[in-house]
Amino acid sequence: MKRIGVIGGLGVIGPWLIRRLLAEGTEVFTIDVRDDVSLLPDVADRFTRCTADVRDVDALTAVLADRGPINALANLAVADAGASDPYLSFSVNGHGSVTVLEAARRTGVPRVIYASSKAAYGRILAPYGHPEFEPLPEDHPLSVHPDLPVYSASKRYGEDAGVLYAERFGLEFAAMRFATIVGPGKQARHGPTSIQSRMIENAVAGVGTVGEAGGDQRDDMVYVKDVAAGLASALLTKQLGHQAYNLGSGRLSTLRDLAAAIRENIADVEIDIGPGLNYLVGLRDAYALMDMSRAQSDLGYEPAYDLPAAVSDYAKELIALGVAVAANEAQSAWGS
Amino acid sequence: MKRIGVIGGLGVIGPWLIRRLLAEGTEVFTIDVRDDVSLLPDVADRFTRCTADVRDVDALTAVLADRGPINALANLAVADAGASDPYLSFSVNGHGSVTVLEAARRTGVPRVIYASSKAAYGRILAPYGHPEFEPLPEDHPLSVHPDLPVYSASKRYGEDAGVLYAERFGLEFAAMRFATIVGPGKQARHGPTSIQSRMIENAVAGVGTVGEAGGDQRDDMVYVKDVAAGLASALLTKQLGHQAYNLGSGRLSTLRDLAAAIRENIADVEIDIGPGLNYLVGLRDAYALMDMSRAQSDLGYEPAYDLPAAVSDYAKELIALGVAVAANEAQSAWGS
Repeated sequence: MKRIGVIGGLGVIGPWLIRRLLAEGTEVFTIDVRDDVSLLPDVADRFTRCTADVRDVDALTAVLADRGPINALANLAVADAGASDPYLSFSVNGHGSVTVLEAARRTGVPRVIYASSKAAYGRILAPYGHPEFEPLPEDHPLSVHPDLPVYSASKRYGEDAGVLYAERFGLEFAAMRFATIVGPGKQARHGPTSIQSRMIENAVAGVGTVGEAGGDQRDDMVYVKDVAAGLASALLTKQLGHQAYNLGSGRLSTLRDLAAAIRENIADVEIDIGPGLNYLVGLRDAYALMDMSRAQSDLGYEPAYDLPAAVSDYAKELIALGVAVAANEAQSAWGS
Repeated sequence: MKRIGVIGGLGVIGPWLIRRLLAEGTEVFTIDVRDDVSLLPDVADRFTRCTADVRDVDALTAVLADRGPINALANLAVADAGASDPYLSFSVNGHGSVTVLEAARRTGVPRVIYASSKAAYGRILAPYGHPEFEPLPEDHPLSVHPDLPVYSASKRYGEDAGVLYAERFGLEFAAMRFATIVGPGKQARHGPTSIQSRMIENAVAGVGTVGEAGGDQRDDMVYVKDVAAGLASALLTKQLGHQAYNLGSGRLSTLRDLAAAIRENIADVEIDIGPGLNYLVGLRDAYALMDMSRAQSDLGYEPAYDLPAAVSDYAKELIALGVAVAANEAQSAWGS
């Protein structure tokens, strides 16, 4: 039986990855700073929870050594991507990426799968952004996004370190870069930072959403369970062919497409998103259609959820988890 | 009187910077992990030495807070640039660059001057490398050098962090990128890693040097006292105009030019460097003529030492410091 560690495993993506890994018959443990299983109560007794901070290489090493032989690690740890505290963000997202590699090297873990980010590409410009949206390939240069500089610089650094550790120590490394992730847990963990989550969770509460503008903006929105499936493949596949993989949905959708799927599959609430592009206030050139051909051929990645299926499953899981917001807590307005 | 802190100040460049700052009438303190004044015994009682590790943000902050108001910091701290221990190199050269910025922010230090590296440019290719050698400008893209990946990735990350701290917190930041530095101290601190130091120090011991190849390779070799003068200007100038500065000699020289200067100014020993390019074994595309126009106009930088003057001064200082190698310790062969 394979033993897989998921660092930062109790956050947004981790719970879906853990369920997937358990379903595939692997032994799972998590390393996190929190000890909160509210996003995966159904499987909480089926894996081991360990506590360590990715900023502490010795603590991390001790936990890994204590687990016995490990087949692969997923590093999903993240802090303050918006960088209200740049030092925290640099320490966890940048330096913490190196400590995970170093702890893996010290304990002989042969593979590290790293949750990088679309932000590592920097600003996504023509022909990859609006209006052409040519599929963005993994070999596009990485750069610092001026509207997200701490996070993108940290992720690029984490990728640089992974490639170096792979070359120097023979460790297998892959950086995973995600399209815009939609899924239950994001709002519960990070608050209403995702307009997609807001629209869906408001509808579950029977409340509509009004967005000032951005209804014409197309983007690649991928369901969190598809992301989890891609991560699980990268962790479990016999051999990695590359050191970076995009995971996306394979299609472009607008918030108006999302609204239609919500009205069809959840509740016929009023969702009114104004016209124009760019609904992410203060973040330019962040929309892309991810080229998934590499993940498809190397990892057998095939997204299973189109937008209606994602919306429908999101609502079902939100209710099952008991983390749906009440109608009187819903925030229906979105804008600058 | 201005108060200037030099982090990593007891290394190779620091002693010359400290002498320069003292000569300009500033108050100086150092922060270092070592407490070794062997490269600056003449001024050891004229500045305060503090001990802290750049990996420890709280220790660094405490030392800075204890010094009272500080006008500027130079961060010269470096560890294991060759990356025999990548984790150490990432921790000191990458994360340590962020902790210095954070400690400066916490204590209200208004300016940080960062010893970056030519390595932050990555491989230096045409038209900037051989044979064109167009002056390499500061706005050349930064990238990871495949033969020096840990060091160059760390320095680029340190620069990214500096630019971000400047933008977010109004701190003044400049990254200094040096041509190949030649000067007494390098061999004493790092061992015989520099062929220029080896040739000069051997000659002081009355011994020749034989190099297998590379005698036709041109490079920009800058004397450490010129680098110190440029750093002092960046620390003391009223206002920085840019966030990155090259410091070089303004000219290209070969090891054969250096050999001629040595025979003329130190001792008529036999120095035999074979023909061809690239005397840095295992490091490709690392030679450049640094464009200094920005440093000249913003910092009034003007290198004072041509190659004969640098060689002559190097020998004089080496003897004065008492760190010259004995003839029986000289290593005369250089090669792959």
